[in-house]
Amino acid sequence: MLLEVTIRLKKGVADPEGANTLKTLRLLGFSTLQEVKSLKTWRIEVDTRDPGEARRQAEEMCRRLLANPVIQDYEIRTLDGG
Amino acid sequence: MLLEVTIRLKKGVADPEGANTLKTLRLLGFSTLQEVKSLKTWRIEVDTRDPGEARRQAEEMCRRLLANPVIQDYEIRTLDGG
Repeated sequence: MLLEVTIRLKKGVADPEGANTLKTLRLLGFSTLQEVKSLKTWRIEVDTRDPGEARRQAEEMCRRLLANPVIQDYEIRTLDGG
Repeated sequence: MLLEVTIRLKKGVADPEGANTLKTLRLLGFSTLQEVKSLKTWRIEVDTRDPGEARRQAEEMCRRLLANPVIQDYEIRTLDGG
């Protein structure tokens, strides 16, 4: 089963990469652009067909390695049923 | 309108960040894990309500700044209708 785990910064945490990308895109002519946020995504193929078990594993991966709980949240999405 | 732009490596391009994360997750006990891919995501708020126009703008941003066409592909997803 294929999962997509997206790591994003918590509200209030500075996002300099997003801010600089916004600035650069505006300089390139996208002058009405309002906001750009930078996120990290992992596509993970787990060896189970049970969506609940796959999600449980992905949450544990986020807690133990992928996300920094002080400044980051995570979202988990299932990409297929196979 | 909120867009999500995901930048991924083209097929055949080495993904050392994904490979090392896979290795580390296996060492942490996720021994049946099959694949981990590393991607970059941008959430972009554009000042239009037309989904076609929003997508056109996002494609231009990818071509001009966000993606390296030699090694990267991009996917664009609309997150809301507002």
